[in-house]
Amino acid sequence: MIKTSNLVVAGFGRVGRAFSRLIEEKAPFLEKRYGLRLFFRAILKSDGGLFSSSPVGLNKLDLNAASSLGLSCHPLWTPGLNLSQIISLSARLTPTILVLATHSSLKTGEPGLSLAEKALDAGWHVVTADKAPLVVRFPALEAKANQNRLALKFSGAAAAALPALDIGCYCLAGAEITEIEGILNGTSNFILTEMSKGRSYKESLAEAKAKGIAEPDPSLDVEGWDTAIKLLLIGRAVMDANLSMEDIPVEGIASLCPDFIVRLRLEGKSIKLIGRIERKKDCNKIRAWVRPQVLEPGHPLYSVDGTNKAITFWTDTMGSITVSGGKSDPRGAAAALLKDILHISH
Amino acid sequence: MIKTSNLVVAGFGRVGRAFSRLIEEKAPFLEKRYGLRLFFRAILKSDGGLFSSSPVGLNKLDLNAASSLGLSCHPLWTPGLNLSQIISLSARLTPTILVLATHSSLKTGEPGLSLAEKALDAGWHVVTADKAPLVVRFPALEAKANQNRLALKFSGAAAAALPALDIGCYCLAGAEITEIEGILNGTSNFILTEMSKGRSYKESLAEAKAKGIAEPDPSLDVEGWDTAIKLLLIGRAVMDANLSMEDIPVEGIASLCPDFIVRLRLEGKSIKLIGRIERKKDCNKIRAWVRPQVLEPGHPLYSVDGTNKAITFWTDTMGSITVSGGKSDPRGAAAALLKDILHISH
Repeated sequence: MIKTSNLVVAGFGRVGRAFSRLIEEKAPFLEKRYGLRLFFRAILKSDGGLFSSSPVGLNKLDLNAASSLGLSCHPLWTPGLNLSQIISLSARLTPTILVLATHSSLKTGEPGLSLAEKALDAGWHVVTADKAPLVVRFPALEAKANQNRLALKFSGAAAAALPALDIGCYCLAGAEITEIEGILNGTSNFILTEMSKGRSYKESLAEAKAKGIAEPDPSLDVEGWDTAIKLLLIGRAVMDANLSMEDIPVEGIASLCPDFIVRLRLEGKSIKLIGRIERKKDCNKIRAWVRPQVLEPGHPLYSVDGTNKAITFWTDTMGSITVSGGKSDPRGAAAALLKDILHISH
Repeated sequence: MIKTSNLVVAGFGRVGRAFSRLIEEKAPFLEKRYGLRLFFRAILKSDGGLFSSSPVGLNKLDLNAASSLGLSCHPLWTPGLNLSQIISLSARLTPTILVLATHSSLKTGEPGLSLAEKALDAGWHVVTADKAPLVVRFPALEAKANQNRLALKFSGAAAAALPALDIGCYCLAGAEITEIEGILNGTSNFILTEMSKGRSYKESLAEAKAKGIAEPDPSLDVEGWDTAIKLLLIGRAVMDANLSMEDIPVEGIASLCPDFIVRLRLEGKSIKLIGRIERKKDCNKIRAWVRPQVLEPGHPLYSVDGTNKAITFWTDTMGSITVSGGKSDPRGAAAALLKDILHISH
């Protein structure tokens, strides 16, 4: 029997567009392998959106071609359309999943936070690639989801195609995770790899920008904040760690001396920007931090180079498990959103 | 609300005993974290077993202390007790899960195969750390499980604490897996690592035996058969690959020349016993093989050394994902059995 789920996509930037393309592309595979048909009911931007009440939703509307701007040239485009209107128009469609592909403020969590809250109040599941609403108000969102027996999934926000949350929560079920260490930011890892070849921090950053790896403003990445945010989300999901950003001391890579890094390499060591979280055995207390750390050859993250990401879980019964790789581009984030949707729809 | 599941354990060797100990040890954690209480209803060996109809089963019977021999000194020991009798004695206990920790023949699949078939016929789920029944009759067992809407789980047989099946089936949901490469046997990987330091095959094998890494008869490991079996199970679960052992050409490591391996190391390359399975894009055909393979530094399995295992999945949307580590001792296998039970009981 074929199951169906309805999708409302908020945000039509690189991730939102990649997600729409992916769902179109994968439709036959999803139906064959998972018995699941996904219908786009609405796509929202800040200034309006599309909505369809037809049984097939917005599918087959050649969303592939639509850029963020192009969306407003679409025949169904309604300026000023917002989520509350869509909720009242589609109240009887269940299940519905809000796909959050917005870029919200890390200070306020908006606009994603209000969208997520409205969706959960309306009885919709939420999957998000937007970190900010979770950083600002994770406990409240989680409580709202639990109370309404809805899913709140965030693989796409935590480490995208690197399945950090799934491994911690699903693959290691029954084991107690005592420590997590991760290389969670591709840009800073690329820069450190370049510096270990003798290049300066400035040169390495310029190279990362030239290659499209670093954002025009790379401060979130190189100062360690992006790593801290991911660590926060992973820690909450996997270790029930009730942390906020103030609990995580953060040190970036900008002030590292290239000579020091080269010398480490000659000594057979490596240096990585590590996010670490541990549960103290004696007092059950959680400690977390982000800082550059020297690794010896036996360490599971020792040879994770370039733009690669990786994470190691230490457990009481399964030993240590390390997972590495996973695309960090918008298609990888879109694939993580799709995965969360499949887990909800199962 | 607390859920309960009933367990019948078949086989009380190292894995069966480690499993019993683990469940006793983890009882408070399982109840708190997963809301699950597990009751041992029976433990079976080839010559008899224990059965309890009391509400708490065999729990609290200090199974920790029981060795395989000790079991037959237990006050509840019943010589000749078998699974059919237990099924008729416990027909109304649902759900029940058969935990298969037997060591069955790779030729006939027995005794595990008959036990698994009987359990599925009785409406019990099956989790197994015993590979043989799956190698001999996977499609029939899977069909029986599906028909009766029961779970047949085999993390413990595929790669134990290395979560190869879960990653392929769950963490990569929605992605198409095009290739899998794995270092799936710790003994042969240890030997290759030693040989890369200039030691002979014989010396390295002796060292592995002295350290308790290699079995007294290591032929399954060093000739590649253990790798092929795991590859077969992972391929079936993850890529729907309908393979039998005859479809997998297997080449082991015993005839490798140490000089060659040392020269590779000096050239910055490594050699690993790789199990590989791929789906040809043009014809959708599956090909699989096991053989020593030279790896360049960029390869995700390049630096997996010693007794470590690892597996890489190549996908269409998430890039490549590599997972490594995971305990290979009986406690690791027991933890994999417990994980499968938690997934069934969820």
